[in-house]
Amino acid sequence: MAEKPLFERVALIGIGLIGSSLSHAIRKQRLAQHIAGHAQSQRTRDKAVELKLVDSIHADAAGAVKGADLVIICTPMSTYAAIGAAIAPHLKSGAILTDVGSVKQSVIRDLGPLLPDHVHFVPGHPVAGTEHSGPESGFAELFQGRWAILTPPPGTDEAAVEKLAELWRRVGSQVEIMEAGHHDKVLAITSHLPHLIAYCIVGTVTDLEEVTKSEVIKFSASGFRDFTRIAASDPIMWRDVFLNNREAVIEMLGRFTEDLTALQRNIRWGESDKLQELFTRTRDIRRGIIDAKQA
Amino acid sequence: MAEKPLFERVALIGIGLIGSSLSHAIRKQRLAQHIAGHAQSQRTRDKAVELKLVDSIHADAAGAVKGADLVIICTPMSTYAAIGAAIAPHLKSGAILTDVGSVKQSVIRDLGPLLPDHVHFVPGHPVAGTEHSGPESGFAELFQGRWAILTPPPGTDEAAVEKLAELWRRVGSQVEIMEAGHHDKVLAITSHLPHLIAYCIVGTVTDLEEVTKSEVIKFSASGFRDFTRIAASDPIMWRDVFLNNREAVIEMLGRFTEDLTALQRNIRWGESDKLQELFTRTRDIRRGIIDAKQA
Repeated sequence: MAEKPLFERVALIGIGLIGSSLSHAIRKQRLAQHIAGHAQSQRTRDKAVELKLVDSIHADAAGAVKGADLVIICTPMSTYAAIGAAIAPHLKSGAILTDVGSVKQSVIRDLGPLLPDHVHFVPGHPVAGTEHSGPESGFAELFQGRWAILTPPPGTDEAAVEKLAELWRRVGSQVEIMEAGHHDKVLAITSHLPHLIAYCIVGTVTDLEEVTKSEVIKFSASGFRDFTRIAASDPIMWRDVFLNNREAVIEMLGRFTEDLTALQRNIRWGESDKLQELFTRTRDIRRGIIDAKQA
Repeated sequence: MAEKPLFERVALIGIGLIGSSLSHAIRKQRLAQHIAGHAQSQRTRDKAVELKLVDSIHADAAGAVKGADLVIICTPMSTYAAIGAAIAPHLKSGAILTDVGSVKQSVIRDLGPLLPDHVHFVPGHPVAGTEHSGPESGFAELFQGRWAILTPPPGTDEAAVEKLAELWRRVGSQVEIMEAGHHDKVLAITSHLPHLIAYCIVGTVTDLEEVTKSEVIKFSASGFRDFTRIAASDPIMWRDVFLNNREAVIEMLGRFTEDLTALQRNIRWGESDKLQELFTRTRDIRRGIIDAKQA
């Protein structure tokens, strides 16, 4: 007899890149008997049905969460408060509620107080993604070999945390439990600052007078190209990330611009040893990433 | 009867990523009867022979250029003046001398005056590369679908420019003729600034106290990873790029930091519309790059 799925009914609130990838992975690993989906737009709901991402589709989030033993919020963080208020009265007793947002302190602050006591709130963040968005962009392997970070507030039921961790492991991820504030600092540097810089330089380039857009595109293979890929990520999602992780991002940005100013001075004064020393040192961390199979 | 090769004897001065890739591509397309090579280190010379990158190997650059009808300098730009002085008396009359350096005004300034009048000096820059270095890292397809920029000073023999352009086309590139000063501005923004920023952020990250190196490596797939690839590029080559294109790099850096400061202010004051507007605008240029097949 086939093993019982990990969850009976999973509700996906939001069916973009992460939601649709979760659907593919959950189906492939047979982790749920039923996937209920909610999306705000009719277009996404139609697409989700067409792509068989869901077993039931709901125009209201409340309808999707009814009877679900796992609810995963996969929408931009600015929508969390409204979604929390809408679904709270309809959550099943003992259900696990998680999310996939890239900032965790603000999620705990904004969503936590709205939830009833009989629900296990385990905020999460799969450190995985592509520059593509929407229900068509998902694929089952997105989480393979990546990390999923869980940031349960103190006192969270351990069995609930472990059950959610098991879901992430089954879709191919390694799980790390982390304090939410530390998560936000780590991600500020590994993800948020790189995205901010990429968005910024692509913006700078489009404003130039002397160099045309078509020249930039032509010769982009020499470095710029990689920044444009990052800067093609979902605008709403990233707007929300920066606003929700404001302090940590500004702190990291301050360190970065300090270093950039020093580097500019090295160039202006022709301090070749200092440039070479930095450029040699930065090679090491690349090796670490290759060794850790995250390249 | 087989077509006569484009060149009788090509001399590669420097056999790193670009030199070895040129060797592979020239052999594959049968563009030279003989490839003579020079490298400064015994290790590289041995490797070049072992990998059959050259038909003759020379410990002195002067020996390699003797009788060559095409000389391609593929070393870091800080070596150009010494190489120019060493090879100048040995260059064949009517030979074409080119290079692959990433800055062109400084090359014309430093190398041009050293060369005899009977040589055609056509500075060049293949806009192609990887983060790997050394004679083992080359491959014939490196230039395929990329651009090669030539920046002949006013008055350069047109037949020589055309013959060199033909070499680049035969190894798979499209050729663009450009004024050297304009080249340096275009590359400052498409290549030099992105590399500088990547080196800088990787440096910033390695200096952090609160977030460990192993955490950065673990969670690098969320954006940081792409910067580390760029920041793993050859340290000497890049040191030379920044020192040789100082003015244009500092000018672009000034624009970038201005924009970054404005963006930081948007985040601090929660100006979500401005963030979203920028993040939406930056998606367009990505589409242009994909359409131009440079993605």
